Formats: sequence, structure tokens, C-alpha cells
Amino acid sequence: MHNFDLITLGEIMLRLSPPGYERISRGEEFDKRAGGSELNVAAGAALLGLRTGVISKLPQSELGKFIKNRIRFEGVSDDYLLYDDTEDARLGIYYYESGAAPRKPSIIYDRRGSSFTKISLEEIPDEIYTSTRMFHTSGITLALCKNSRDVALELIRRFKAAGALISFDVNYRANLWSEEEAREVINEVLPYVDVLFVSEETSRRMMQRTGELEDIMKGYAKDYNVSLVCTTQRTVKSPKKHDFTSTIYSSADDKFYSEKPYTDIDVIDRIGSGDAYVSGVLFGYLKYNDPLTALQFGNATSSVKNTIPGDLPASDFREIKGIIKNHNASGIVSELNR
Amino acid sequence: MHNFDLITLGEIMLRLSPPGYERISRGEEFDKRAGGSELNVAAGAALLGLRTGVISKLPQSELGKFIKNRIRFEGVSDDYLLYDDTEDARLGIYYYESGAAPRKPSIIYDRRGSSFTKISLEEIPDEIYTSTRMFHTSGITLALCKNSRDVALELIRRFKAAGALISFDVNYRANLWSEEEAREVINEVLPYVDVLFVSEETSRRMMQRTGELEDIMKGYAKDYNVSLVCTTQRTVKSPKKHDFTSTIYSSADDKFYSEKPYTDIDVIDRIGSGDAYVSGVLFGYLKYNDPLTALQFGNATSSVKNTIPGDLPASDFREIKGIIKNHNASGIVSELNR
Amino acid sequence: MHNFDLITLGEIMLRLSPPGYERISRGEEFDKRAGGSELNVAAGAALLGLRTGVISKLPQSELGKFIKNRIRFEGVSDDYLLYDDTEDARLGIYYYESGAAPRKPSIIYDRRGSSFTKISLEEIPDEIYTSTRMFHTSGITLALCKNSRDVALELIRRFKAAGALISFDVNYRANLWSEEEAREVINEVLPYVDVLFVSEETSRRMMQRTGELEDIMKGYAKDYNVSLVCTTQRTVKSPKKHDFTSTIYSSADDKFYSEKPYTDIDVIDRIGSGDAYVSGVLFGYLKYNDPLTALQFGNATSSVKNTIPGDLPASDFREIKGIIKNHNASGIVSELNR
Amino acid sequence: MHNFDLITLGEIMLRLSPPGYERISRGEEFDKRAGGSELNVAAGAALLGLRTGVISKLPQSELGKFIKNRIRFEGVSDDYLLYDDTEDARLGIYYYESGAAPRKPSIIYDRRGSSFTKISLEEIPDEIYTSTRMFHTSGITLALCKNSRDVALELIRRFKAAGALISFDVNYRANLWSEEEAREVINEVLPYVDVLFVSEETSRRMMQRTGELEDIMKGYAKDYNVSLVCTTQRTVKSPKKHDFTSTIYSSADDKFYSEKPYTDIDVIDRIGSGDAYVSGVLFGYLKYNDPLTALQFGNATSSVKNTIPGDLPASDFREIKGIIKNHNASGIVSELNR
Amino acid sequence: MHNFDLITLGEIMLRLSPPGYERISRGEEFDKRAGGSELNVAAGAALLGLRTGVISKLPQSELGKFIKNRIRFEGVSDDYLLYDDTEDARLGIYYYESGAAPRKPSIIYDRRGSSFTKISLEEIPDEIYTSTRMFHTSGITLALCKNSRDVALELIRRFKAAGALISFDVNYRANLWSEEEAREVINEVLPYVDVLFVSEETSRRMMQRTGELEDIMKGYAKDYNVSLVCTTQRTVKSPKKHDFTSTIYSSADDKFYSEKPYTDIDVIDRIGSGDAYVSGVLFGYLKYNDPLTALQFGNATSSVKNTIPGDLPASDFREIKGIIKNHNASGIVSELNR
Amino acid sequence: MHNFDLITLGEIMLRLSPPGYERISRGEEFDKRAGGSELNVAAGAALLGLRTGVISKLPQSELGKFIKNRIRFEGVSDDYLLYDDTEDARLGIYYYESGAAPRKPSIIYDRRGSSFTKISLEEIPDEIYTSTRMFHTSGITLALCKNSRDVALELIRRFKAAGALISFDVNYRANLWSEEEAREVINEVLPYVDVLFVSEETSRRMMQRTGELEDIMKGYAKDYNVSLVCTTQRTVKSPKKHDFTSTIYSSADDKFYSEKPYTDIDVIDRIGSGDAYVSGVLFGYLKYNDPLTALQFGNATSSVKNTIPGDLPASDFREIKGIIKNHNASGIVSELNR
Repeated sequence: MHNFDLITLGEIMLRLSPPGYERISRGEEFDKRAGGSELNVAAGAALLGLRTGVISKLPQSELGKFIKNRIRFEGVSDDYLLYDDTEDARLGIYYYESGAAPRKPSIIYDRRGSSFTKISLEEIPDEIYTSTRMFHTSGITLALCKNSRDVALELIRRFKAAGALISFDVNYRANLWSEEEAREVINEVLPYVDVLFVSEETSRRMMQRTGELEDIMKGYAKDYNVSLVCTTQRTVKSPKKHDFTSTIYSSADDKFYSEKPYTDIDVIDRIGSGDAYVSGVLFGYLKYNDPLTALQFGNATSSVKNTIPGDLPASDFREIKGIIKNHNASGIVSELNR
Repeated sequence: MHNFDLITLGEIMLRLSPPGYERISRGEEFDKRAGGSELNVAAGAALLGLRTGVISKLPQSELGKFIKNRIRFEGVSDDYLLYDDTEDARLGIYYYESGAAPRKPSIIYDRRGSSFTKISLEEIPDEIYTSTRMFHTSGITLALCKNSRDVALELIRRFKAAGALISFDVNYRANLWSEEEAREVINEVLPYVDVLFVSEETSRRMMQRTGELEDIMKGYAKDYNVSLVCTTQRTVKSPKKHDFTSTIYSSADDKFYSEKPYTDIDVIDRIGSGDAYVSGVLFGYLKYNDPLTALQFGNATSSVKNTIPGDLPASDFREIKGIIKNHNASGIVSELNR
Repeated sequence: MHNFDLITLGEIMLRLSPPGYERISRGEEFDKRAGGSELNVAAGAALLGLRTGVISKLPQSELGKFIKNRIRFEGVSDDYLLYDDTEDARLGIYYYESGAAPRKPSIIYDRRGSSFTKISLEEIPDEIYTSTRMFHTSGITLALCKNSRDVALELIRRFKAAGALISFDVNYRANLWSEEEAREVINEVLPYVDVLFVSEETSRRMMQRTGELEDIMKGYAKDYNVSLVCTTQRTVKSPKKHDFTSTIYSSADDKFYSEKPYTDIDVIDRIGSGDAYVSGVLFGYLKYNDPLTALQFGNATSSVKNTIPGDLPASDFREIKGIIKNHNASGIVSELNR
Repeated sequence: MHNFDLITLGEIMLRLSPPGYERISRGEEFDKRAGGSELNVAAGAALLGLRTGVISKLPQSELGKFIKNRIRFEGVSDDYLLYDDTEDARLGIYYYESGAAPRKPSIIYDRRGSSFTKISLEEIPDEIYTSTRMFHTSGITLALCKNSRDVALELIRRFKAAGALISFDVNYRANLWSEEEAREVINEVLPYVDVLFVSEETSRRMMQRTGELEDIMKGYAKDYNVSLVCTTQRTVKSPKKHDFTSTIYSSADDKFYSEKPYTDIDVIDRIGSGDAYVSGVLFGYLKYNDPLTALQFGNATSSVKNTIPGDLPASDFREIKGIIKNHNASGIVSELNR
Repeated sequence: MHNFDLITLGEIMLRLSPPGYERISRGEEFDKRAGGSELNVAAGAALLGLRTGVISKLPQSELGKFIKNRIRFEGVSDDYLLYDDTEDARLGIYYYESGAAPRKPSIIYDRRGSSFTKISLEEIPDEIYTSTRMFHTSGITLALCKNSRDVALELIRRFKAAGALISFDVNYRANLWSEEEAREVINEVLPYVDVLFVSEETSRRMMQRTGELEDIMKGYAKDYNVSLVCTTQRTVKSPKKHDFTSTIYSSADDKFYSEKPYTDIDVIDRIGSGDAYVSGVLFGYLKYNDPLTALQFGNATSSVKNTIPGDLPASDFREIKGIIKNHNASGIVSELNR
Repeated sequence: MHNFDLITLGEIMLRLSPPGYERISRGEEFDKRAGGSELNVAAGAALLGLRTGVISKLPQSELGKFIKNRIRFEGVSDDYLLYDDTEDARLGIYYYESGAAPRKPSIIYDRRGSSFTKISLEEIPDEIYTSTRMFHTSGITLALCKNSRDVALELIRRFKAAGALISFDVNYRANLWSEEEAREVINEVLPYVDVLFVSEETSRRMMQRTGELEDIMKGYAKDYNVSLVCTTQRTVKSPKKHDFTSTIYSSADDKFYSEKPYTDIDVIDRIGSGDAYVSGVLFGYLKYNDPLTALQFGNATSSVKNTIPGDLPASDFREIKGIIKNHNASGIVSELNR
């Protein structure tokens, strides 16, 4: 039996944000949190009930210890964390400021040369490849630097070879690499992918796919043998009010799955809601092997993440079940969990 | 002359809630407040100008002292507080977490065996029965345990006998007792009641009343000689946005009173807004003996309570008058009290 | 060359407000900030790129030092601050409490006898009059007391004589003076004014102007040779949700300028948004000498100020440019500054 | 029977202090508290078990309401609070900053023209004079302004005439009046005084008394028929470490009482510890009519007040008893109240 | 090989304490932490490098989840946590208030009927007994209730039988059981114990041992075959300043070990420093099997725990090594870890 | 006339520290401050009354803006700040954790590749060299990287050539460069230096000077024509309690100056107290040209800095004068600034 249901790979950063609606350029306090796309996915899935771990590299310092402890707090295993005890070990940082119409939320990254970018294959123990049912990473890891890209690509190959499912979130970030560079590398990855997350806009612009959205989604399945292609639809009515739903194409039954959107989501903290979607879908997929259930868990987990301060989700199975039930309820619904 | 306009009976608890939108399962701080349905009523009425007191039992400890001080802070008399100096004295606690769509607010109770449940008739001084114009309690007090129920029932009888008006809020809580049990006890109480607060849903499900709402309300008056029957209408658009109004049936003039709803109430803290309604109605009733004024005070006091953090209201007569005036204003209204 | 683009005159106060939605009558903390209409204008313009200073008088104490430091923090020069080292030196204070429907925000002033009211012409150095391209003050300074009024009137005359443009915000406050008193004094000021800010309501009620809004605005230009007349339109949907736009009449080309409103502004702190409007208009006017650009900067700077805690704006040129661009964008707009 | 054991007269102020060791000239927060010498006395005595009230005048505003609520929170009656609803009603303020060697704590007052200074005899109900066993005020009330002085002097006379004991704390403040002025007024007060609090330094400098301390203390008793003369000895080792004890002369038995000092008191907040001393002595005197017990309660209540943030004491009878017991214990003392 | 070095058994509570020097009876905030003697031991040992777990029972609720997450945050395994999903599941609470001379720190317990007291042997998996090198519990677990006592006694027997070392901290609490009751039960436990922690005062009073301390310590070894007997010496100079050292008797070499005390420890939070001592000793013993090293780790870990807010220690191997080195250094020591 | 009395050169960092005694590895908040040795010097001198500026380079971002605003808040000119708008612009960071015996304070640096290390001579305007009476920098600037070293060396030459006095603080940091490297570079600097700050330990170890301290100090003056050589003596009794004084050698009168130490300083935040010393000495030297006054200002400014949270001093001329006066007072000193 596998020790893990899901292992992810990615950088974990210190997130600093001014409390409330204060600005980065003012105030005397930062909220201090941990975050990172692939950690967020592992945490979301762990809360729902999967056994998950994260491969990352942290400075061997009190800051690295803070991050490790937070990871454990979330129920994610620290078995595959690596530590950097060199002199220039550093933890990547990002600063996040909330938005309120007409002010957009904003992010400043300070992640160059972080310990994660020095990760090497040799540090990762060989038994890892057979220890999990699924491996997940994202385009951010591919974009960060040559080294993290090479490690990620090789890990994808090794996990696949060892029989793990591969999940991949394209997560294109224009501030990290060009569309050309990204397209080339992603195309290299796609043949290994079982579950793919890609937005319509990224499909069209960076991936240069054309046609109806459904055709584009189906295209990935056809071209690369992807089992599940997932595309989210977020409508930003204001920084504090979003609608959200998604579409999943399942190649096994050649069907599209969708549901009515969650509307008027009260956005407290939008960061990590995309990763929460991934965690919900992967949970649904790994636990129930049912695209509709995967979609429901993905949508609910993502929607409710927007109401949670910080990158990391905080909703367990019971809560997500309740949210799905309310979303599909017809009559009156109690307004309070008592 | 009476020393008090209103005396209430009920458990007072420590309320612990994570600040902002943080979760009970995370974070490192709790806001520390006092709350309890019948205290909330006494406090709301005191702020509006009535002389009020509360009968309750608190542990003889620093925690009990905290609660006593908060009660006084609200302008409520601590004359009838009882103290429990036994070894297993304890203060009931509840944990409250805010909601944001699609996350519902939630409550965890930890009130078993609290000092209040050990209250006894003998501790309550005899002169209390003639000291007040009105006595109020709620279904929660009846539901907590056999002992508090017996004390409440006997107090209702004694206050009534001594000439006080009796106010009762059904406030049915499914987590405290079954519908059958509740119905039986409430039916025992109703013959004593002058002012009754009951929701439509509770009337239909627990009380098994049928027909149009107006018929149901009138039914209480007819069956039990209740003077005023009050039913609130809350529309929960989202955890942060409610509409609110109410209907009052007055048996004296056999008329129904209502007004257009307060819409798009910004809900900061929903707890205690039902109790605030009661306090506003009782104030209006005791001060002006006019059902419409009672209704207006009830609706305004309840609506604005939603904007106040904590269980306890914080609005005085001047503020409520201003809110009623704005609610009924036709032209432009200043947006700022300067 | 002038050392300053803009010098303003006005009282600067300590602003104390309970955090979040707590009330002045409760809680154990105040947020401690600096504020004052004319400082707000100087700060907003400084953040956008003008060299600005403020003439004011502060107590020679740790509190005065706090205010001075905050002024510098905002990028405003403290060259023309005066200090009061008499025994009864005091800093004016105002207490501000947020609103949430149906609770209105409210303000309590405690500014009588503040050091500012003791300002004298003799303290202000003579070289100031030729040091700036523009001088700005508001009706508040005229209303505070006889002394501040006389100083303000004389400063207007001297700056005008020295060749500076004069900007004036009528900012009528009924709690400071009567309509009659205000009208008389303002009429004395108007002949000196180049840029005038006046609301429609004030034009009609206090200034007793009649007719269409456009006629009223044009009237000031005609009667007093004002170059730019600016009137804002704020729609208060709720204490937390406003719409905002404005109209500017430019006498040079005899044209009215306007743009579609900013809608559904998330109001975090409404105080100072009017002053932010003035700062944006003056920046646009002084930098580009173009009424439309002035209008766009005014509207954007004011709208976004509502999302910033405290009186003082916090938006630089790059942010305001981005907001204007988004406001006028047609297609999809990124929801996050990354 | 009297309704009150002790009624005091004095100004109550808003106290604003930066948290921790932050400075008034920096930071973004103030702790918001109520304080005032005579309120502090009433609160300390109430916590110990006396029924106390305070005569003061507050603005009829949310700030006044805050103060009133805090007074009630402390267990002090608000029966004799007066409210100022004039336009220039204001609450006196003081700013307090902590010390740490070699930085001294510091205070900035902003109390001129406060509502208290407008107090008048006519507002105070006649039944008050016979309602209490003792009346207390201090030299601060005499020093504030002509009006508060006249009211205080007349109250002293009327309470005395009505049979109440008079307690007076000289509390000389050089920033409020000159030594000559003070001496003259105090000499007018002394013939009425039963319990006198005066420091050695004040006796020597302002009161111009000479000789040994014991002679000075006895002198007050002889010259003015004072029953109890109390003088404290505070040794300030550093802003964070004090020693404290006191001496009491009792004219009834012509004896001096003293005890070994409390040493190495951890000073968290020194303000109000003198008032706490008064409250402890008055409690001991009124309750036990025993100078030694009065001294012990005074010393213990004062010493422990230094460990409490804010002006107001927070120690009840049980705590003070425990501290007195520990102070006099010989063997090992448990280090924790469990 | 064993999966764990150390497994402990004990109740884990929510700890609520007012920030800084505020009191339980005042203020509006509680710091929210997890604590419990045996968890503290497991956490301290985990931070030093052992693989540790804790057997406990938590409510199946958001509060239970909070505790579980905190346990993981500390590096302790949650493998053997049990969850109580009954209706009356509850988390034990204790309230802690800091001390400052002459105010003692104080604790209020509210732990009756907590989920832990319902723990049963059946819930604990059988493989646990062979999974660890050592098992630890304390007298608190024996004292809480009959059920926890029986479970603890049986676990001691089973772990011993399975070959694990047994560590036991007498930790006598007079508020939980009488001396007679405790003595009888502890005497039942002692024959199983390999490492014993007992204070001199408890040895003399509750255990009724007499003679020199060294004789008493040796007595346990002789009477019950205990390998290591550990007794701490704490000198409480003030609530904020302690000295600390300990003595260990090792029966293997029949020797006493001690070192010069840590003096003038700055006590920020005294709770859990005794448990930290246990964790340090057990770490030294299990890792180095050397009584002197065990003593050094115990003393250093305990001393530094006093400087850490909360029950739980926060010092890793590197920090403790540094503190031991400084403690034994002769010349100048750098004052800052840079 | 010069526009500035003092211009300094150095890196300015974001300082992040957990509040109170919390640890970097735990907690959810960081205090957010600005700091840097040479900024601290400029700020201290500005508060005392000099006109000062700082040459530094900051990222062109909201973080850079925060630092700029803080610099202005302190009264230091931002005229010579440079901005880095390249893609890899970053602000150096350091994390600081307080100490409490036996826990030492600790610092983690994350400053590699900061924008400051990219400063270039070309960016610095030529008029700067004649704009100031004195230029100051420290060994940290020389140690950071080749580029900052070259810029610093050239600036020293140019300022000297333009007639400015040169102040230099050796400030040797073993974590930045080796003793050999440092010695070689410092020796290159010394011929330009007028005021030198160097500790005894650094003189002996890194600079390899031998003999009595006085001989060493005199040696610098003789060998390099230094006017003033300043050496501080800090005695660290515990992380929270220091003694402090210093010795100054003045070559003009060939005399040593010293005074009795400040004892039992309550250390709230030790960082920046060395820089505060420099600022006090330079103020005294530039203002009074008197070594004893310089020494007194240096010692007082440094001692009191230890009581101020953050790197930056907060004491003005009046406060420092008061501290010097108290330090030299013989009789009783008031314990409170009222």
C-alpha cells in the first residue's frame, strides 16, 4: 500500500501582509503566514482526508522551522522537506495587500535565489516514487529557474514510471517566464499528465489553442491522453465579491461536467482559491473516481477558501459536504451551524 | 413604585470568538465577551432607558467577576446575580465563528453543568417579585435542564401572581430539547404570557400551528390571552447581508402592525439581534404602551444590533430614534452623524 | 523657480477611532492617526508627485511631534509648521466611528481652543508668498474662529498678490457656523479664487444659488472670474458602498467635463475622500493644465481613498494611472496587481 | 442606614497610552482607559467590598457614556454622575507613556475647560449628604479651577454637617497651582478633615511644616483634630522596580503604625497606586476601625496596583488578604494561585 | 526498530490567558494556546530531536482540530490521538494569569468531564506497546478521575511488559486529590518506574519520606529499582525572576549529579518549565544514556522555557547546546546570536 | 552655508520581529520597522536638532516607499535616496527576536543582492559633496560587497576633499567579512577619518592593536590624525539589564573623557543603541565642539535608546538634556515627567 495519496512539489514562501485594508507602504505590522501553490494543494487535500506530503527545500533556520511547523499544522507530512544549511540559504517571500473596489489586491515577490531554487534530485530519497498514488506540481515550479524546472521534469518522469498518476496545474505567470518559453516546456510535460488544470485564457493566449472552450479541453485529452481536463470560471464582480464554477472534461466517458456557479462569494482572501480548487478535484477524483464529485468538491473547496484569511485552506470533509449540500438545496437552509 | 421596569432570567456565558474571519481551528486569539439571550434583552432595554436587572448564577471566580462587571458596564443591575462557590462551579462557554458566503457562521456550545444550571428558588430574595413591572425569560432557560426549567416556571408563576407582566421568547433550539418536550412545556407557560415572541417556523414545526401566519399569531392571543404576539421576518441574503422586519398582533385593538423591512443590513455580528428585537419591543411597550412604537423600536434595535460586534447591543435611545427617523424619511438623508 | 507647487493652510488634528466596527462607547483601543482637510489635500498631491507643504500650528509636545512626523511620512514638507509652547497649547482631536447599514458613521469633535486657533500672521515667514505656485484652504479654516479666519483671508490676499493661484474648497459645516455667516465670508473670498470646490447642496442651501447645476457652476465663474468650478456627486448606497463622480466647469474653454461614475466603491473609510478629490484635481490642473485630466485624477484619487483606512490618502501616481486606465478599459481587466 | 459607605468627588478623564514601551510621538494605537484620582479611590474601595459612588460631570456623548460604563464596570455607582449637554462639553484627557530606566514615565494633560470644571452645586441632589458614611476628595479637585474648588469646599462643609466623615488627599500638583495658593486653600479644608493623606515632601515644601516626620504628622492631628494622618514612603529604584510602605498616625490612641516595606514591586503601571493606597486605608478604617488593618490594606492595595495596567485597581478582598498574608508569612510561600 | 522514542499519555487543554499583565476579570482578549503536562514533555523532546507521540482524547470538533494542529505544529505525532464524537464531548480549559510582585500568577481550571476523562483502553491500538522505547505519564493523569487512572495504570503495565522504559513525574496537585489517595496510587506505580521525577516537598509531605534529600532520592531507587531519580530546585525570587537547577541520582553508578544553578532567569511564562525539564532529561537519557548530560539538558531546557510564552517549549537542539555552553563558559560570551 | 550638518551612507533594511517574547519560529505576526546602522545615526542626530540626510538605494516599490516614509517620519531628509526599478530590485531584510535570560536575542539576515548593493557613484549628484559639514559611514557598508565598498571609499575621499569632516564607525561584523579583509580596508579608510568609533575588542582582535585601552585609542589619533576616538563600554548583566558608558580621546587637547556609567538600563530593544551613541557624540561634537558634551550626549542617547522598541531612536534634545541632568543629579529626582 502507498503511504501517501498525494505528494506535491513546489516552493513554499513566507507571506507577509498588512492586516485588514492597510497598505504595504504604511502601518507597523505584517501578518505572517506560509504559502505556496503546491503546498496549498497538499494542505487542502489533507484537510479533506487524504494523506499528503510536499517536496520542498527550506533554509535551515528559525524561519525554515516556522514554515515546517505550519506545514505540519495543516496536516501535511514534512517527510520530504529538504533543508538548506548553506550561508546564502533564504526563504522566498511575498507581500500581499488586499483589494477593495476600485483598488486591486497586489503582490510583491521577493523570491530570487531562495533555497528552493537549489533543490537537487540527489537529495530526494528513491523510495518516494513508489510511496504515493499521485504526484502534483504546477507551472510555477517549472518557471522559477532552470534547476527547479529540471528537477520537476525528472520527478514527473520518475513518478509516472513508478506508476503514480500525474496532476499538473499550468498556472501561467507572465512575470516568471515568457509565453514561448512556457509553451515549449508545458508541451514537454503534457504527455505525462493524467489530470490537467488550465484556464481558458491561458489555453488561448499562452498555449495558443483556438476554437470553443469545450473543443480546447477535449483537445488536451486527445493530443496527450489526459484523463481529466479542468477549467475554472471566475467572475470578479469586485475584489470582495466573486462568482465561481468550473467545467471538467473526462476522457473516460467523453463527457463534460459542470454545475451552477457559487454566486456572491464574500472574498476575504482570494489567494490560494485556485489551489483549493485543485485540492478538491484531486480529493474527489482519488477518493470517489467520479468526475462530478470531483467537480463538486473542487468548486466548493475553492469557493469557501475565498472566505479564509491566508493562502492555506481550512475546511474539512464535513464542512465541504455541508457546503455542497446547501449549494444544491432547494428550500430554506439554516443560516447558522449550531 | 417599582425599582425595576424589567427583570430577566437566564444563563450568561463567556463568548469566545476568533477575530475577523479567522477560524476556531486556527489562530492564536479569542475575543472575550459576555452573552446570553436574557442578558442581551436586559442590556438592550437598559440602554434605551429602562431600569433592568438579570437573575443568573455565576461562579465565584475571576471569570464570574468578569461577567458581573460586563453586566454592569451595560447598565444592567447586578442586584440579583447569584454566585456559586462550590468546587465544580463553572461558567458556560460558547465559541462563535463568523460567516462569509458560502461559509455559514457556526457555534460550539460548552455549557453543560454550568453554575446557572444549579440555580435554586431559595437563593432568590422574596422582594424581587414586587420589584418590577415585567419579567422576561426564554425557551432556552426552560430547555437547559430540569432544574432551570422548574425555577423558571415557578418564577413565571410568582411574578405573575405579584402583578408583573410576563414576556416570553420561545427561542426554540433543537440542540437543547426535542420538539415534543418543548411543546409540552411551552404550552404550560403560555397561559401566563402577556408578550410573546415566536417565529413562524417555530409556530409551524415545533408548536404545530397551521394556517396563515396572521391566524397563527391571533391564535396565541385567543387561546392563551396573550396581549402582544410578535413574529420577526429575517431574510438572509448572505451571512453579511440581511433584510429584517416583523409583525405584531395586538389583542387589545385586534390589529396587526408592520412596517417596510430594513434592507441590506450590513451584518457584522448577527448574534443577539433577536434579543435586541425583544428589548426594543419591550421598551416601546413599557414606555409608550403602543404596539406600533414597540414594533418600530424592535425593528430598529434589532437591525442595528447586527452591526455591533458581540452579543450585547450598544445603542441608546437617541441612536434608535435617529434610525427610525431615517428609515421613514423620504428625501435625502445625511450620511454621517457629525 | 518655486520651491513648492502647493501650500495649504488648515488645522491638523489627532484622529482617534475604535478599530473595525467597535464603538466609541466601548472597547479598549483607539487607532491613532493624523488628519485635517487641508493636510489631506497636501498629502494627496504630494503622493501624486507635487512638492507640497502645510501651514499649521501644533503644540510643542510629544503629540505635536507625532503629528509633525506623520506629515513628513506622507511626503508633505514641515517647513511651515508653527509650534505653540504656551501652557494651554493643545492638539484638536476628533473621534470617528465607522458605519454599517443602518448605523451611520459618526464623529465627535473636541477642537476648541486648539493651538491652531492661535495662529498669527507674524509667525509666518514672508518668503512663503513667493515660494509656491498655488495656495489652498477651505471653509473649515474660515469657520473655526475669528483668528483663523482673519489669518486665512489675509493669506489668500497675500498669496494672490504674490502671483500664486488660489484654490478654495467651500466645505460648509453646519456645526461650525451659520449659513448666513458662512455666505458672507465666502463671498468675500470668491473674488480671489481660481479653482473652486463646492457641492450642489451647499450651492443651493448655504450659497442660495438657484437654477440648473450647470448654471450654478457657470455662475461662480462669471460672477467671480473663477477658472475651474468643481462639483462632486456621491451616491451613498450604504455606509459601505458608494458611487462617485464629478463635474468640472472650465471657464477658459467654457466647457463642462464629466465621466461615468465609479460604482460600488468599497468604503473602508470615507473620511478624507473629498479632500482626496481636491488633491487629484489640483495635481491634474497644475501638472497638465487640462480639465479632463484634472477630473480623472480627482475622481480616481477620491474613489480609491475610500478604500484606505484613515484620513490621509495613500495612492501614488502609478496607482492612480492604473485606476483611471481600468475605469476606462472595455475588455477584461486583470484582477490582481502581480 | 446609609446607601453608601464612601462617596468621592473628582474629575474623570480619558487616559490614552501607547501600548508597551512605545512612545506618544510614534506608533498607531492608544490604549483607551478611564482614570481620575477620586474615581480610583472609589473603585478600589468598591472592589474591596464597600458601596461607593462618585460625583463627577461628563459630556453627554458617546465618550461620556464610555466613562460611565467603565465606572459601573468597576463596581462604582453612577447615581451621582452629572451630564453636560452644552455645545462645548468635553472630556478631559491625559496621555501617559511608560518609563524604563533611564527613561522616566511621562504625562501630558489636556483637561482645560472639561465638563467637570463646569460642575455646580445646584445639580447635586440634596439627599446625597446623608447618604454616605464618608466623603473623599483631593487637592486636584481644589486646584483645577475656581468653580470646582468652590463646589468641593462647599461639599466638604455640607457632608461634614450631615455627619459624614471627611477624607482628604493633599495630592499637590505643581503644574496645577502654586504652593502659596495651595497652602491657603488646604488650610481652609483641614479643620473638616478626619482622614488625611499627605506626603512628607509636600508637608515640608508646600505646607511648610518642619521637624521630624512623626512630629509633622502629629501636628496635623493636633492643629486640626484629624483622626488619621497617613504618609506613604515610596522608593523608586527604577521605573520598573519600587519599594513601598507607609506610616499612619492615629490620634485616638496617639500611636504610629507601620510595617516592613513591600520590596521589589514589579511596576507595570504606577499611575493610581497612590489612590489605591487611599482606597485600602479607607476600607480598613471604615470596615474594621483599626489603624493597623487600615495600614495593611493600604500598603497591599497600593503595592499590587502597580502590577495592574491602567489607573484603576483590580484587586478584591480575597486577593488583598492573600497578599497581606504572604507579606507577613515566614516560611515558604506557594508561588502560584492554583 | 521502534517508530517512536517516547510516547506520553495525558490530557491536553485549551489554555486561555489575558495578554501581558491584564487580568482574567478584565480586558477583551484571550491568548489561545494548547497545553498539558505530558504534551509539553512530548513537544520538548520532539524539538530536541526525538520521535514522540501523545495519547490523548479530544472532542471531534473545531476545537479538537485546533489542538490536534497545534500538536503537529510542535513536531509531535498525532497518530495516537483519539476523538470523542459524543454529544457531551468537551475540551478541558484552563485560564492563566501572569504574576508580577506582589501579585502571584494564578490559574482557574475548568476541566471536569472533558473528553480525556472518557478515554478507554479499547480505543488504543495494540501495536502501540511495542512502538516506543519509552512511555511517560504523570500524577495528574492518575488524579483526574477513576477512568483515566485505570487506563494509565494499565498502560504502564502493558508498556513495561512490552519492554519500554517507564518515566513518571509525580507532579502532585493538591486541588485534584488528597495526599492519602495520591500516595497509595503512586506507590502502586513506582515498581514499574525507570525514571522518576519528584520534588523534595512532595517527597516529604505527600510521599512522607524523611531524612536528607539525597537519602530520599536514593530511597526510591532502592525501594523500587528506579534507575534515575530527578529532583528540581527552583528559587522564586519574584514572579519574574527565578533561579533553577536540579539533582539526579543514578542507581547504575550510585552517583548524584548536579550543576550550578541558572540564576536570574527572566520569567516570561513559568507554566510548562517543569515539563520542559522532564523533556530535556529524557532526551539526554535516551540519546546519550548519560546522567550528567541528561541533567544538563534538563536544566537548560527548563530554564529557557521560562522565557517562552505559553506552555509549550520552543527550543531545538542547537539552542539548548548553546545555552549549556554559555552556562559553562568562563570568559566573555557574545550577547547576541547573529 | 551647508544645507546639511550630517549625511550618512548605508543600507536600510526592513526589520521584522515577533511581538513581545514570541519566537521567529512561531506566532502569526511580525512588527514591521525600518533600520540600518547609518540611518539610525542620521535619525538620532536629526531628533537632537541637526539637519541630516542619508544616501541609500531602495527598490522602486511599495516596500521602498514604506522605508522612505519612515525615514522622513524620523526627520531625516530623503533628498539623496536612490531608487532601483530593475526587475530584481529587493529590500534587504533582517529578522530580530528578543532575548530573556538565558535566551539570547538573535538575528537572521536576508540582505544578499539588495538594491543597496547596486548603488553607483554616477547616481549620486555632485552637489552633495559641498552640502554637508560631516559625512558618516560604517564598516558594514564596506563589508557588504565590492560595489558598496568602492562607492563608500570614493565618497569618503570626495567628501573629505570637499571639506567635510569624516566620521567612521568600525562596527566589525564577523559574519560579513574576515578579520584580514576588514583590517586591510579599514586601514585604507583611517587616514581620512576625523571621528572614529571602535570597540576595545575590535581594536584588539580585528585591528590587532595591543597595550592599554588608552594607548590603543591614542594610537589611532597618532597614526592617522584622528581628532576624536570613541570607545564604548557595555556590560550585559542580562538581555534585559545593561550598564553603559564610554571613553573619548580628543587629540586637540590630548585628553581622555569619561563619566560614571548608566547602570541597570532596562533593555527593551538593544538594536541601534550603538548607532544612537554615534548620533549623540556627533551631535555634541558638531553643535558644541566639546568632547565632554559629546560624550554626555552619546552616553545618554545610547542608554535611553535601549528603552525604545525598534532600531530607530526617539529622543529629542529636551529629553536627552533631562537624562543627562538626572544622571548627574545628586539629591532626589522626580520619578515622573508631568
